[in-house]
Amino acid sequence: NFGYYPEKGGITLVISTHLNKIVKFNELNQTVTVEAGMMGPAFEEALNNAPELYGVKHKFTCGHFPQSFEYSSVGGWFITLSSGQQSSYYGDAGDLVLGVEMISPSGDIITKEYPATATGPKVLDIIKGSEGIYGIVVELTWKIYRHKPENRQYFGFIFPNWDAAVNASREITQGEFGMPAVFRISDPEETHHGLKLYGIENTIFDKLMTIRGYKSMERCLFLGSADGEKQFTKNIKSKVKRICKKYGAMNLTSFPVKKWEPGRYKDPYLREDIMDYGIVIDTLETGVSWDNLHEVHQQCRAFVKSRPDTICLTHASHFYAQGTNLYFIFIIKENDIKAYTDFQEGLLDTIQKSGGSLSHHHGVGRMISKWMPEHLGENQINVLRALKKHFDPNNIMNPGKQLING
Amino acid sequence: NFGYYPEKGGITLVISTHLNKIVKFNELNQTVTVEAGMMGPAFEEALNNAPELYGVKHKFTCGHFPQSFEYSSVGGWFITLSSGQQSSYYGDAGDLVLGVEMISPSGDIITKEYPATATGPKVLDIIKGSEGIYGIVVELTWKIYRHKPENRQYFGFIFPNWDAAVNASREITQGEFGMPAVFRISDPEETHHGLKLYGIENTIFDKLMTIRGYKSMERCLFLGSADGEKQFTKNIKSKVKRICKKYGAMNLTSFPVKKWEPGRYKDPYLREDIMDYGIVIDTLETGVSWDNLHEVHQQCRAFVKSRPDTICLTHASHFYAQGTNLYFIFIIKENDIKAYTDFQEGLLDTIQKSGGSLSHHHGVGRMISKWMPEHLGENQINVLRALKKHFDPNNIMNPGKQLING
Repeated sequence: NFGYYPEKGGITLVISTHLNKIVKFNELNQTVTVEAGMMGPAFEEALNNAPELYGVKHKFTCGHFPQSFEYSSVGGWFITLSSGQQSSYYGDAGDLVLGVEMISPSGDIITKEYPATATGPKVLDIIKGSEGIYGIVVELTWKIYRHKPENRQYFGFIFPNWDAAVNASREITQGEFGMPAVFRISDPEETHHGLKLYGIENTIFDKLMTIRGYKSMERCLFLGSADGEKQFTKNIKSKVKRICKKYGAMNLTSFPVKKWEPGRYKDPYLREDIMDYGIVIDTLETGVSWDNLHEVHQQCRAFVKSRPDTICLTHASHFYAQGTNLYFIFIIKENDIKAYTDFQEGLLDTIQKSGGSLSHHHGVGRMISKWMPEHLGENQINVLRALKKHFDPNNIMNPGKQLING
Repeated sequence: NFGYYPEKGGITLVISTHLNKIVKFNELNQTVTVEAGMMGPAFEEALNNAPELYGVKHKFTCGHFPQSFEYSSVGGWFITLSSGQQSSYYGDAGDLVLGVEMISPSGDIITKEYPATATGPKVLDIIKGSEGIYGIVVELTWKIYRHKPENRQYFGFIFPNWDAAVNASREITQGEFGMPAVFRISDPEETHHGLKLYGIENTIFDKLMTIRGYKSMERCLFLGSADGEKQFTKNIKSKVKRICKKYGAMNLTSFPVKKWEPGRYKDPYLREDIMDYGIVIDTLETGVSWDNLHEVHQQCRAFVKSRPDTICLTHASHFYAQGTNLYFIFIIKENDIKAYTDFQEGLLDTIQKSGGSLSHHHGVGRMISKWMPEHLGENQINVLRALKKHFDPNNIMNPGKQLING
């Protein structure tokens, strides 16, 4: 059942076996209409090879590359509000969808595909992030981009500390010269591990960093790339360079991001193997504004680190002019499931109390639903409940998820 | 009552007299929290003079300049899904708001101000475009941009025909080098009048156009500007130039857009004066995809022109990679109100049948509400009705608007 657990019985609908094709290629509008079960790699491959497969003029890309890319579907990206690793340029999954068809107990919904319309609240927006509790999205119209890897620019820097990395990132996102695609800063502890993982340890860069006073467990890694038109990406690289220099960073060239790129979907693979040794690697993540980023980061780290022998890696990897996300990877030794879920719940409490969003792009599902009423407030939860009741009066669509008691 | 007509009795709430201030300036997040009744000019002036008024480092702009700018409020922009004349770069009003406070019969809603969050469908999105039928938005958090008029680039071109102007515009919006701010193409009839209005008639440009074979009632005017970082705006201008040349356009320099700019809020002023002579100037507008732009344009023009002695000017002025808007200005001689509304309804029917959206940025209100069920389909209207019933069970908030029968 694809890892899905139908808590209240019923059936699990797997649509990736049959609803998995591009049904319409509209090169003029730069959209494709795609069945919801099409998986990431097949979708991207079809777009990259569009001239041969669909007789169109250009090659395209979907622009959406979450870590789960290989094992996730286009419909899943949309319905859970997923973010790809190049989202700072391409947008989050919710931004990339122009229209949907959803089958629900209250009837079929087919939204119109206007680039913009002022005809009341948009039902498309209401379906975004509903995680299957209103109905089943069977088809989506996805905004595509020209595939021009030859224009891509890569860059990498090391900052003296986290403050400098955050301040430079904010200046980049607010600089109005266009956004990098991959845009990722690691805190000191993640940088410590990242430098090993990306093969920088014991290189000439490592020696230079030490000589120039970038200290281990203080310094912070920044990886980035830019997509788009040729001069546009060159200008981004040049502006990023200037800003990083201003905040005391040393240029690491494209070396680390090119080391990171090939393994970017593979990190979770390790998780299953290590679990056999009683070691848990897990993640929680949150959306933050610039003005509460440090508060959330410090409180969450303090909570995780209050356990002895715990590793806590943090990065920010999805940027907006108003803020970013914080992604916590923690590695703890724990065999007891109850003790582990207590720890996890403690971290969610800490995110909530420190002012972060409950999730930036992992969604709600079952795990986070009980925090929702306090997070959004009773009045907003009642709006979501009213929608649930309208779409699915008998609570048969993905029951028990997102909203407690349907 | 500010031109507002409370159809079913009750009261008109004018909030611009008291709820009209910026209550919080957050330079770090690049947002301001503003009361809903603050009017356009006061808002923009406060942001332009932010260092003196709020003790912040930089000058800012709201990025939103609809034609109604002088007589419209920040809350109004948001709740009606307004678009400004520089929206192709800054985004539409719905994109520019990060959070709201709304008072409704079912309770107060205060949405969180995360740049992104994956915690279910967003109540902020549900309120967008609701035109006051759910409750009263009293406060908004608005995304602001750095005010750098010194970086602005202007450009203007004349195309041999409408097809060329549309194709060039599509290539610009899909070119991934950043979007122009002002971005406006006029069809042949609007170009004919525009060349007079912007003082191009009888200039050296006029002679050159004629010599080079750009024929009156065929040629099409393109006005544009670019905002943002210095190299970014220069690159946009250079790419726009190259694309326009490719489609046979002649460069008119910055002359016409600089003529257009000072009067850009004034066009409707004329309307009231002329009405005394039995001449009606009115507008209808629609959102279109690239693949149905010509169909909608031709059918609507044919409908308007089927009346003798009618002027019909069309431009597209809000661009997206997937399409644009079409804005029809028609000038007809008509003293009879019934005959006029019949004409107006006929044009709305034509927009609907040819596949355009009922409105790109004028909203629904009373005038368009009866087309809504056919436009969105009964199932989507039922979603909006369920929301209305939830927020306002007694139908006391702006009754009779957007949805027929509440």
